[in-house]
Amino acid sequence: MARSSRRISEPSEDGPKRRKILEIAARVICDKGYEGTSMQDIAEAAGLTKAGLYHHIRGKEYLLLEIMHYGMDVFEEQVLNQVVAIENPLERLKACMDKNILLVTHGWSKEVIVILHEHGTLRGEARAQINARKKRYVRFLETSFAEAIRAKLIRPVNPKVAAFSFLGMVLWIYKWFQTDGAVTEAQLAKEMQNILFGGLEKGLRRRAR
Amino acid sequence: MARSSRRISEPSEDGPKRRKILEIAARVICDKGYEGTSMQDIAEAAGLTKAGLYHHIRGKEYLLLEIMHYGMDVFEEQVLNQVVAIENPLERLKACMDKNILLVTHGWSKEVIVILHEHGTLRGEARAQINARKKRYVRFLETSFAEAIRAKLIRPVNPKVAAFSFLGMVLWIYKWFQTDGAVTEAQLAKEMQNILFGGLEKGLRRRAR
Repeated sequence: MARSSRRISEPSEDGPKRRKILEIAARVICDKGYEGTSMQDIAEAAGLTKAGLYHHIRGKEYLLLEIMHYGMDVFEEQVLNQVVAIENPLERLKACMDKNILLVTHGWSKEVIVILHEHGTLRGEARAQINARKKRYVRFLETSFAEAIRAKLIRPVNPKVAAFSFLGMVLWIYKWFQTDGAVTEAQLAKEMQNILFGGLEKGLRRRAR
Repeated sequence: MARSSRRISEPSEDGPKRRKILEIAARVICDKGYEGTSMQDIAEAAGLTKAGLYHHIRGKEYLLLEIMHYGMDVFEEQVLNQVVAIENPLERLKACMDKNILLVTHGWSKEVIVILHEHGTLRGEARAQINARKKRYVRFLETSFAEAIRAKLIRPVNPKVAAFSFLGMVLWIYKWFQTDGAVTEAQLAKEMQNILFGGLEKGLRRRAR
């Protein structure tokens, strides 16, 4: 196979195996710190030779970027692409919260979230790439809130503050939620939807549709 | 002075100067990483000799813990202690959000927040100390929401999810808010209070007081 003779640079090329390695790399980096992590450490944790690892990951200098792109790929696949076509902006936002909460509690390892949202180590072009992908989500939320307000589906609020309130509620979950805790996953999504949208829908005198 | 002959271990002993050094240390750690930061780096950034620095900070192994305790000291002083005696639980929660938002946008350097909320490096007793202080705040919020529900000041919601929704909204602010941005600080607090409490207050048929 031609693949074995070169480094992989595109996310789509070796799918599930590459994803698993990135999940493992995220765990090692969260444990030992980025500076303290070598490609050898990751190879060992993944049960690969160093050469085998380089077959999947271009090199240590790309590792954080690749983990972040992987996180954003999964997010777009499982959240954004699932809801973007829902016509009613309020239903779109509710479905989006539902799917994003599920992703936070289930879809990613905690370490991928930590690297995606807490690692400030990226610089320059790499940082710009990830920020552009994150901003796309913020704009999607902001636009959906603005649309829901125009359609009188929710009370008028500042769409930007509403978008970041949504994000803060949903993304902070990884910091406290325990699957064995007092709140179940089903309750969590239902309660957060109720707290945010239940409140925004109340007090409306008329609906546009 | 007796002080110059020993290391300082209590937060109250040399007040403002110590705080300033901890703010500087937080900045250096966020820039270079904890592993990559030496006491010499911090001394230089603070304009002190290494001996001068040890007069204020016990040692590198305590640095993260001391920055976190400093962050929690400021938080308790400026937020929790200011609102804990407010009798009406809804007013207490609103005032708390107001003061916590002000602290996030103004009171701490971003780096202190990052270390307080993102640094997972603490282990054992140190970790337990900081977690206990954070949990006190979560319990305070949870209890206040439960009280507000019992008093029929807000709709019934899960107090734990409400507490973490509050926290997520408020603490996520440091990740996106820019003082020169489209949303002013005054708007931010007002809008978030409206989004969370405006919604929770709506749809109530009667008030207990």
